[in-house]
Amino acid sequence: MSVATFYHAGCSVCVDAEQNLAYALDPARYTVEIVNFADSPERIAEAETAGVQSVPAFVIDGSVFHVNHGATMAQVKGE
Amino acid sequence: MSVATFYHAGCSVCVDAEQNLAYALDPARYTVEIVNFADSPERIAEAETAGVQSVPAFVIDGSVFHVNHGATMAQVKGE
Repeated sequence: MSVATFYHAGCSVCVDAEQNLAYALDPARYTVEIVNFADSPERIAEAETAGVQSVPAFVIDGSVFHVNHGATMAQVKGE
Repeated sequence: MSVATFYHAGCSVCVDAEQNLAYALDPARYTVEIVNFADSPERIAEAETAGVQSVPAFVIDGSVFHVNHGATMAQVKGE
């Protein structure tokens, strides 16, 4: 099983991607973890280290896939 | 079954998304069609009508998900 981590911040763009793309992955091959920074701000550093520059984004097997554009990580951090 | 159309233009960003995200969708729920504009330029108009602004991008159930940034549609069209 691969782990696909979907990082988001609760924005409408994020929720749309969550509903239509994150839940579309094959459950036989991927464990999808949904991380909402509003609930889990302590995961922000991990996402940035992985290369996440904006949300929503997937990290799958070390590769980052930014999906549309909800917010920058600076906005997520309130900078 | 839903149809997920993955539009791309053969660029490295596109191929990475194809390999890691397009093929990750659940085959029990999604028929994934891969459209490479280099092979199928006649599909460009259809993609633009659906709202595709850059590639790689998915269109799933009418929603457009731009994934990272390989090329704009203007670049795809050689404008």
